[in-house]
Amino acid sequence: MEVFIEPIGRLINEFSKLPGVGRKTAQRYAYKVISMSEPEAAAFAEAIVGVKRRVRLCKVCGNFTETDVCEICRSRDGSQICVVKEPKDVIALEKLHEYRGVYHVLHGVIDPMNGVGPNDIRVKELLARVNEGGVKEVIMATNPDVEGEATAMYIAKLLKPLGVTVTRIAHGVPIGSELEYADEVTLARALVERKEL
Amino acid sequence: MEVFIEPIGRLINEFSKLPGVGRKTAQRYAYKVISMSEPEAAAFAEAIVGVKRRVRLCKVCGNFTETDVCEICRSRDGSQICVVKEPKDVIALEKLHEYRGVYHVLHGVIDPMNGVGPNDIRVKELLARVNEGGVKEVIMATNPDVEGEATAMYIAKLLKPLGVTVTRIAHGVPIGSELEYADEVTLARALVERKEL
Repeated sequence: MEVFIEPIGRLINEFSKLPGVGRKTAQRYAYKVISMSEPEAAAFAEAIVGVKRRVRLCKVCGNFTETDVCEICRSRDGSQICVVKEPKDVIALEKLHEYRGVYHVLHGVIDPMNGVGPNDIRVKELLARVNEGGVKEVIMATNPDVEGEATAMYIAKLLKPLGVTVTRIAHGVPIGSELEYADEVTLARALVERKEL
Repeated sequence: MEVFIEPIGRLINEFSKLPGVGRKTAQRYAYKVISMSEPEAAAFAEAIVGVKRRVRLCKVCGNFTETDVCEICRSRDGSQICVVKEPKDVIALEKLHEYRGVYHVLHGVIDPMNGVGPNDIRVKELLARVNEGGVKEVIMATNPDVEGEATAMYIAKLLKPLGVTVTRIAHGVPIGSELEYADEVTLARALVERKEL
């Protein structure tokens, strides 16, 4: 790639780090940046730096937030906790405007094949929240794939002795898929038809 | 999109400005940035700002450069000028390692339907270069589409009275396509089999 001058080659390298972006696509993105005005490019760069500077994890639920405790944890019904794998799953559920409880983001699922055990995801934090009291129901909304199912089962087993109802979103969501890509109707249905584990 | 907190929503907006990037892809890119380390994100942002700060157009050929006159113009045979539409076409040709002359980047092609006339692209600058003397051949390597052909014909007509040989890359490159996407064998063949206009 020595045909590119250094600053362009460097930017192509950076874009290539984005998921699913090859050299050709990265090159197109780089040329787009070159064609931007200085303020446009500055705003783009600032948005990248800003997201790192301003976004952190909510101390309670682990979702992305700008404050110590996120807006959802501060304003919603804490008796219902919906457990998801990743922050993007919160986005998928929030788009439904159906769910009024709070969340717990695990930041992963148990996956022994890839060396991820219960202590590598935010299970302890979930148990602590439930132990604090006031929680009536925990909805397991991990992905309907092997790891997601196993994680839901594992956590349900830990939670039940604590006297809390543990439910699982219904299998309206196609098995083997990612929660993020489920259509809204299917996802809403899965939420309504959740069943006790 | 009010489900995203502001800094994430802002970054998604920025990524959405890249060519061919929809909301979902922009969201994936934004999450990737969030998962980067601070130095990684800083390097990414710096590459964006850096490309705007450091890259300008070569005073001679109009290609991207960090210096007043680009490396190619400073070091190569100036008697042969290859005329292309865009800087990315220079990249496509340079990758062949076949051509040893210099370039002239028009930054567009004549396209009356979209209000682009000869004065909107770098035609004057090309004529000035040829008038300065020392140029033996001008290779028209604009895209093999309607506008590219018309631009090549138009420029050839202006150049011939100046006593310079004007050639056109051979139609090995598929008609209606973009030069950037031609495979290297086809593109190299088209360069070798160029014919006088």
